Amino acid sequence: MIQIQKRENNIKAIFILCCVFFSAVLQAQHHQYVDPFIGSEGEGNVFIGPSCPFGMVKPGPDNNKASNSGYSADKDKAIYGFSQVHVSGTGGGPKYGNISVMPFSGDTGNIKHESLRSNEVAKAAYYSVLLSKWNIKTEITTSPKVAYYRFSFANNDNNGIKIDAGHFLGENPVPNAREAQQFVGSEIEIVSETEVKGYSKIRGGWNNGATYTVYFHAIFSQPFSHFKTWKDDQLVSGEKVQMDEGKKTGALLFFHSMQGKQVEMKIGISYISPLKAKKNISTEIPHWQFEKTLAASQALWENLLSRIEIDEDASSDQKKMFYTALYHTMLMPVDRTGENPLWENNGPYYDDFYAIWDTFRSSNPLITLINTSREVDIVNALLQIYQRAGYMPDARSGNSNGRTQGGSNAEVLIADAYVKKLKGINYYLGLEAMLKDATVPPGGNEEQEGRGGLTDYNTLGYVSNNFVRAGNRTLEYAYNDYCLAMVAKGLGRNGEYFRFIKQSNNWQNLWRPIEDNGSSGFIMPKDASGKWIDSIQCDVSNGRATYVKYTPLAQDWPICVCWWCGFFYEASSWEYSFYVPHDVATLIEKCGGKAAFEKRLNTLFNNGYYNVGNEPSFLTPNLYHWIGRPDLSSERIWQIINKHYNASRSGIPGNDDSGAMSSWLLFHSIGIYPNAGQSYYLINAPAFKRTVIHQEHGKDFVIKAPRLSAKNMYIQSATLNGKPFQQSWIEHEDITAGGELVLEMGDKPSSWGRTMLPPSLSTSK
Amino acid sequence: MIQIQKRENNIKAIFILCCVFFSAVLQAQHHQYVDPFIGSEGEGNVFIGPSCPFGMVKPGPDNNKASNSGYSADKDKAIYGFSQVHVSGTGGGPKYGNISVMPFSGDTGNIKHESLRSNEVAKAAYYSVLLSKWNIKTEITTSPKVAYYRFSFANNDNNGIKIDAGHFLGENPVPNAREAQQFVGSEIEIVSETEVKGYSKIRGGWNNGATYTVYFHAIFSQPFSHFKTWKDDQLVSGEKVQMDEGKKTGALLFFHSMQGKQVEMKIGISYISPLKAKKNISTEIPHWQFEKTLAASQALWENLLSRIEIDEDASSDQKKMFYTALYHTMLMPVDRTGENPLWENNGPYYDDFYAIWDTFRSSNPLITLINTSREVDIVNALLQIYQRAGYMPDARSGNSNGRTQGGSNAEVLIADAYVKKLKGINYYLGLEAMLKDATVPPGGNEEQEGRGGLTDYNTLGYVSNNFVRAGNRTLEYAYNDYCLAMVAKGLGRNGEYFRFIKQSNNWQNLWRPIEDNGSSGFIMPKDASGKWIDSIQCDVSNGRATYVKYTPLAQDWPICVCWWCGFFYEASSWEYSFYVPHDVATLIEKCGGKAAFEKRLNTLFNNGYYNVGNEPSFLTPNLYHWIGRPDLSSERIWQIINKHYNASRSGIPGNDDSGAMSSWLLFHSIGIYPNAGQSYYLINAPAFKRTVIHQEHGKDFVIKAPRLSAKNMYIQSATLNGKPFQQSWIEHEDITAGGELVLEMGDKPSSWGRTMLPPSLSTSK
Repeated sequence: MIQIQKRENNIKAIFILCCVFFSAVLQAQHHQYVDPFIGSEGEGNVFIGPSCPFGMVKPGPDNNKASNSGYSADKDKAIYGFSQVHVSGTGGGPKYGNISVMPFSGDTGNIKHESLRSNEVAKAAYYSVLLSKWNIKTEITTSPKVAYYRFSFANNDNNGIKIDAGHFLGENPVPNAREAQQFVGSEIEIVSETEVKGYSKIRGGWNNGATYTVYFHAIFSQPFSHFKTWKDDQLVSGEKVQMDEGKKTGALLFFHSMQGKQVEMKIGISYISPLKAKKNISTEIPHWQFEKTLAASQALWENLLSRIEIDEDASSDQKKMFYTALYHTMLMPVDRTGENPLWENNGPYYDDFYAIWDTFRSSNPLITLINTSREVDIVNALLQIYQRAGYMPDARSGNSNGRTQGGSNAEVLIADAYVKKLKGINYYLGLEAMLKDATVPPGGNEEQEGRGGLTDYNTLGYVSNNFVRAGNRTLEYAYNDYCLAMVAKGLGRNGEYFRFIKQSNNWQNLWRPIEDNGSSGFIMPKDASGKWIDSIQCDVSNGRATYVKYTPLAQDWPICVCWWCGFFYEASSWEYSFYVPHDVATLIEKCGGKAAFEKRLNTLFNNGYYNVGNEPSFLTPNLYHWIGRPDLSSERIWQIINKHYNASRSGIPGNDDSGAMSSWLLFHSIGIYPNAGQSYYLINAPAFKRTVIHQEHGKDFVIKAPRLSAKNMYIQSATLNGKPFQQSWIEHEDITAGGELVLEMGDKPSSWGRTMLPPSLSTSK
Repeated sequence: MIQIQKRENNIKAIFILCCVFFSAVLQAQHHQYVDPFIGSEGEGNVFIGPSCPFGMVKPGPDNNKASNSGYSADKDKAIYGFSQVHVSGTGGGPKYGNISVMPFSGDTGNIKHESLRSNEVAKAAYYSVLLSKWNIKTEITTSPKVAYYRFSFANNDNNGIKIDAGHFLGENPVPNAREAQQFVGSEIEIVSETEVKGYSKIRGGWNNGATYTVYFHAIFSQPFSHFKTWKDDQLVSGEKVQMDEGKKTGALLFFHSMQGKQVEMKIGISYISPLKAKKNISTEIPHWQFEKTLAASQALWENLLSRIEIDEDASSDQKKMFYTALYHTMLMPVDRTGENPLWENNGPYYDDFYAIWDTFRSSNPLITLINTSREVDIVNALLQIYQRAGYMPDARSGNSNGRTQGGSNAEVLIADAYVKKLKGINYYLGLEAMLKDATVPPGGNEEQEGRGGLTDYNTLGYVSNNFVRAGNRTLEYAYNDYCLAMVAKGLGRNGEYFRFIKQSNNWQNLWRPIEDNGSSGFIMPKDASGKWIDSIQCDVSNGRATYVKYTPLAQDWPICVCWWCGFFYEASSWEYSFYVPHDVATLIEKCGGKAAFEKRLNTLFNNGYYNVGNEPSFLTPNLYHWIGRPDLSSERIWQIINKHYNASRSGIPGNDDSGAMSSWLLFHSIGIYPNAGQSYYLINAPAFKRTVIHQEHGKDFVIKAPRLSAKNMYIQSATLNGKPFQQSWIEHEDITAGGELVLEMGDKPSSWGRTMLPPSLSTSK
């Protein structure tokens, strides 16, 4: 607890210090390039409201209960409230949307109020909108756990502020509807003429999680003249308490003589108790200075965003895309240190891993690079979850593990931290957590945690069609096993090393030598007896079954099979058959050698089999590196980025997935891309002539490409700290050591990177 | 919710009605025979404080943090508090002990206070003790969710009442110590000069459960003059709030001018919120009349205890033992309807199944017999747990499933309800829940729920030594499969019927034809390849392993193996090899026929292989019925009872296990014993000449044995409703129809019950 207190005090100190510092020096602010609207249209699903980095409170406008972020870009969708908890970039059933706040004027006898919006502004740490129906301007900023609202009223009287403790996103009246949040209870209490407290208790949502409770305490800058409260739509005057009887509750607070005046509200949230929510206010925002709070939050952003400085000459759009990508990567997971209701609060605690399957590839490596101590905290939080809840999560939200898309990829985070030599992690405990995944089947809880189909995998060497998602499970387990093996080896645990390094070849057990569109060999489904499966039974009517042929191009299973029940999750065999991040050399061999592999990659990209909007193929554009053609990797990367990413509101090509899409863009923009779980980055042509990475320990690493231009996008040669650098990848320790990587650019492919190939399991033996 | 409101109103109405009624008519009160001290010494571990039937609040004296009930009979152990939640009769690590209250005098600057006790009185619904150090008399009674205290002070000044929100039983500083409760958080708030509220948040305990929160609201009959509060042992004056920072909190409330005066305190608890705890007070005890509350609670007991009337001529000890046994059976599980924090409160909710493995055999059948609607509620609660938590529990406490000793015996409750035709249960849903147990392995959560080792069981036909407790798991799963099959059959689901009725023979797969102490054939461990296991590796030192031979008499495994890791749970093969409740006829055959079986039973009892203090052998004394010798069953039963049960404080021979030991005694005392999961009761010589069962639907069933005496303990013949009754068992429907079973008693064994044998799977085909 002392540790936590210190942490919290530190955060407070930083928050206040930053505030003082940055209100003085206001120039060259990276956070000004952040445009939270990027990805708010199309499929990005990003959260547009204000938040601190990894902040617990995420207040924002809700105008669509079915939207993952609560927000729909549609101008005709009226805002009906601003709830305090959101996630960013997610798909599937919505989560959170707790404790909705809404100012209004006029009809004081009604619970429901909504207005169209105008003058919408979203910046890092700030959101404002004019509720045009009543001309009420609503501004929001936050500290880590407290939302700060400023309402400017136009009408003199009959102004109200609603607090709806029963609100949540993704409501579905069916009791256990899959992925739907379900109401459990709520409570509201008028504490004084300036204070209201209560809670919201919800279960379910995308991860089908257990019940979580969001407590709140709200303080107003001036007393409300009177109030009404409700339970189950029954609005009554003067009743101070609406206790939890499994019904929705809320309050209307009324303010008079307000024309042109403002009411401010600080609303602290907590997962512990209303008193802790109140304490969060007094710790983080003891004053009534909106601008000061805003400046402090911006300073927290500035502190992190400024850790990567890109070329000043970069275009405005480039800067906007870059810093917004960095911003999007730091919205989640959420730092809930000191706010864990499930066990002793004696270590860092993070929630909303949503999901590690999305973020392990590039988001977590990015945190490691610029905010190493936070990645250490995140890994330690995962290990504490393992210790208390039994397994590390793949996804976790609302304090509940679940759902697992494929592998047990938290293991990759452990391995990534280990090979990058992050300090402050008990890797013996990490190995234990990895071994739990790899040896103890989760049984009926396979959707929640662990490795589903492990009983098959550990006996047959692959997951058979007796289990859903058998294809990507097998592939991902093989890579997870590689990660486990490397940690085991490092810790001198040879027995486990040999077992799991062998198992890391298991992907080959589903490698079927068939041809499709000119390429040969694909990961294909197999039954438990070892027989390849050619077709899927789709439907039975009048005693006759319909079968659909299963091909390497089938997206998931044929449409007749449920979304999570296919052979692959969210991609085809064409995409997944490239997923062998630890042994690309063997993969190339299986594909028929370098020429066949190059052709195969070209087919993937040229025929549109590659899906830019999802994670399984994140590494694939870089696979040309392993046939000695990093130039082709760069070509593909920039082809993809230029076509699918931009600075507009629909500038993210798929669900941003807690910033996964954004961090993918970001790494490629600076010219390095991690192979998560391994110690190196692949080098590609960057977007900027100069990038400086200010590392947490104080040493800078600079990537320069002085002659870079639209034409000069081929790396001719490279030097590291002045010495020739022939390899097309760079080790993490070369970066942490500080220094300078200079890329000589030219307008034609060169021989650079042709002879030395990046690491592979089979070639490193 | 309307349903719940109605339920709660009903309880309230009954509570108040009973109170009015029974304060008028105070005679022939069965509850006066209850002696809560029976089982408080020795191994009984019963809770001695007051409680309503199945009541949520269980306030009682704590003088031993390591005791399961919080209580040690040792006179030298000082009482240090009265906490509000306890369990009764349990073993293993303690659970609960939340929100401890303690009156004291004198030292007002200290948190710790304790006193030796005298004048201890415990009755149904009432407990009082004199804290001799300060001559403070403490009296306690309860409503279902509210504890009512009356403190009579001797000193004039410096009197205090402590509320310790951080207290819990079984404290262990090691973070995840097995079976140990662990502190998570607590909060306390002085609401006014007569009100205090807060909570206690604890995890772990015997079932290694997730965190649960007990909220409380306390109201005092007169204002305290001043107070101190503490956090983490730091006692301060005047600080009203000690919020949750993961530290223990509490308050000292001071009362002056108290000589010879009383302070009363009502403390409501809730698992929902402090406001709900307060509401529970205003709903259940809106007044300040201790005696009225006591009378109302006694009336609730009287209502249930009077449902079985035994012969008025029974001895005082017999009455005491009988009604105390009935009382002990109705302390748990706990009715928490309307108090479920985990999902919508729209149905009956029970917690503290501790464990069904203990209670399914006789306690639940007893509830079915005299309080049918409650058993329906309990089964429906289990089905709701299945729907929301994924599996029915074997054990559940603090709102968490876990731990499972052997089979998935909640299935027996479903089957028992089904074959006894209980109305108001969705048996299709019940079958679904049973099928989940029988087909979906719990994997790493096998300790929490489901069938551990199911992957073996469903492929090999038995659980191999790859899994712990393989012996009793195989036996219990076989019986669970029988139960499942019978429900499937009744619902017309023949596919499942045939699969599971066949599997119900699986016990035979571990039947090894070896001889031990003159009997042949025992359930013995086998490995996954089908090889019998003869010895257990016990220890390895200096590279040399020690092996211990495994015999049918080995209790659990040899001592070198952990308690929960043996081949059997809490019994030997000698005991468990009799556990085939659905097919005793085949068991007799496997044992070598009737004579061999009789000899085997005699060896079990005469050689002391039978363990009276545990559940695995609950049915065994009755197995003589199946060789046509119910007279021998009766002899054994009374031999056991007379030797091991009595009306003293150590009158229960083992952990009472939520009343399991008590209900076993009770059934045999009235002359019938259920074979849970099946529709009949075996008949034995009763303890009473006349027993009347007042069934809930209004029809009485009478069991008479007019010539019963110490000598005349053999049934010569029987009539049911005046007609000759040759069979040694009676169907449940014969009892529910109402009527009269008359047993003609004599001093010698007779031919009654010799020819018609009770049902068995193999003979019923």
